[in-house]
Amino acid sequence: MIKAMMKRTQEVLFFLILALFYKATGMKPCSKPPQVDCDGFCLSWRLAVEANNVRGWRTVPTQCLHYLETYMIGGQYDRDIEFIVGEIMSYVNGIVPSDDGMDAWILDVDDTCISNVLYYKGKRYGCDPYDPSGFRAWAMSGKCPAIPAMLRLFSNLVNMGFKVILLTGRDEETLGQVTIENLNNQGFVDYERLILRTEAYKGQGAVAYKSAIRKQLVEEGYRIWGNVGDQWSDLHGDYIGNRTFKLPNPILASDFTSKKVHAVNQNM
Amino acid sequence: MIKAMMKRTQEVLFFLILALFYKATGMKPCSKPPQVDCDGFCLSWRLAVEANNVRGWRTVPTQCLHYLETYMIGGQYDRDIEFIVGEIMSYVNGIVPSDDGMDAWILDVDDTCISNVLYYKGKRYGCDPYDPSGFRAWAMSGKCPAIPAMLRLFSNLVNMGFKVILLTGRDEETLGQVTIENLNNQGFVDYERLILRTEAYKGQGAVAYKSAIRKQLVEEGYRIWGNVGDQWSDLHGDYIGNRTFKLPNPILASDFTSKKVHAVNQNM
Repeated sequence: MIKAMMKRTQEVLFFLILALFYKATGMKPCSKPPQVDCDGFCLSWRLAVEANNVRGWRTVPTQCLHYLETYMIGGQYDRDIEFIVGEIMSYVNGIVPSDDGMDAWILDVDDTCISNVLYYKGKRYGCDPYDPSGFRAWAMSGKCPAIPAMLRLFSNLVNMGFKVILLTGRDEETLGQVTIENLNNQGFVDYERLILRTEAYKGQGAVAYKSAIRKQLVEEGYRIWGNVGDQWSDLHGDYIGNRTFKLPNPILASDFTSKKVHAVNQNM
Repeated sequence: MIKAMMKRTQEVLFFLILALFYKATGMKPCSKPPQVDCDGFCLSWRLAVEANNVRGWRTVPTQCLHYLETYMIGGQYDRDIEFIVGEIMSYVNGIVPSDDGMDAWILDVDDTCISNVLYYKGKRYGCDPYDPSGFRAWAMSGKCPAIPAMLRLFSNLVNMGFKVILLTGRDEETLGQVTIENLNNQGFVDYERLILRTEAYKGQGAVAYKSAIRKQLVEEGYRIWGNVGDQWSDLHGDYIGNRTFKLPNPILASDFTSKKVHAVNQNM
């Protein structure tokens, strides 16, 4: 009788432990909630940022530091970019470039072609406030690695005959040379132009500056088929292109870093 | 034998403690991966939809059925809406409405004020293709429940003196009366106007139709402070308002359901 009791106790404990193990490790595939409750807020934050519902934020909510670190370096950030590049390629494959050499794509540079995740790590993934001189020092090092999926997209576009124009808010005078070298040593070669921010555009918001440049390009005859950036300010304004694609960036809000926030108001 | 029993009990206790330890550490706030790997694709899909990177999709990827069900009814969808409504209220609290009665907000109706999640359940959360007559029958039932956070926002806006204009693509002739009643019995009262699609706008894409209506409102003198909808087509086009807010909807793409896809092209 004691034996039977022992056996039953063992069974009960076994299933109890199994249940606790599953609960602890969350191993039941694809039928789990997308995340544990404490991550729910940070996921809502990230979604709201990417859908442009949160604007001009200065820092990432401190409680999301670990969430964001896991997101950025744990695989999902890469997965999100791969997914978007897949969408871009589906769209690209439906376009036949003409032979006049004026079919263009516009790509942003930072966190679009090359990555600043290593730098963000030292800034607690955006939990620390934006540090212009810190960022400049990082950019000066010329050590931004390529974002692999975006390098593949870049090469595909070039090989298909599109003119790829890299358009960045980086300052031409101080960061021009190092940016050219950084892009080159990461494999971004054969682009049509790299356009950096010159004296004339200093102090302008990203939307105004990038709109002005795109206007010039369209006036030169370029057809902007696509426009890819990690900031909504890359994709808003005038002459935005036939399709825009927003890459994820839950760490930095360029509308805060810009001196002048461009009003998107259309009727006020 | 008692010794063996003791030993077994010790072993069981050891694993029990281990499991509890994993559980304890796994629950360390916000340090778990955002989701298990197999959900990564569906999370990427959802993010890409909400950031308007995927357009005109007909059905949700079948492998995301369980993920989407969990998202929609497991808490995160509600959490995402609560978060956005929090952002809207932060913005609203910075506005002082004037006393001319022309400070307006525009809210979409379906999946913005009232919910169709119960209907989507029967359509496998978007894994089944869009079914216009099925949706009409559901809407005719007048049983769409209020989205609680949005009802709260609605009431706040009305109490603060804003004129809330409900703008929907629902057909006025067939769904006008039932929509008025559904909204009323869910607590959406004291709105300024409910604008449904009349004969004149039939066959137009949502962007064109809603832009035309907003243009009329602005010409009447309304100042559109905010514009809230679950579809990008609610928020694109002309006279979009001072701020737009995109509520989540990973199930339905209105740019597919519209007969004419409005070209967002600005330079082609």
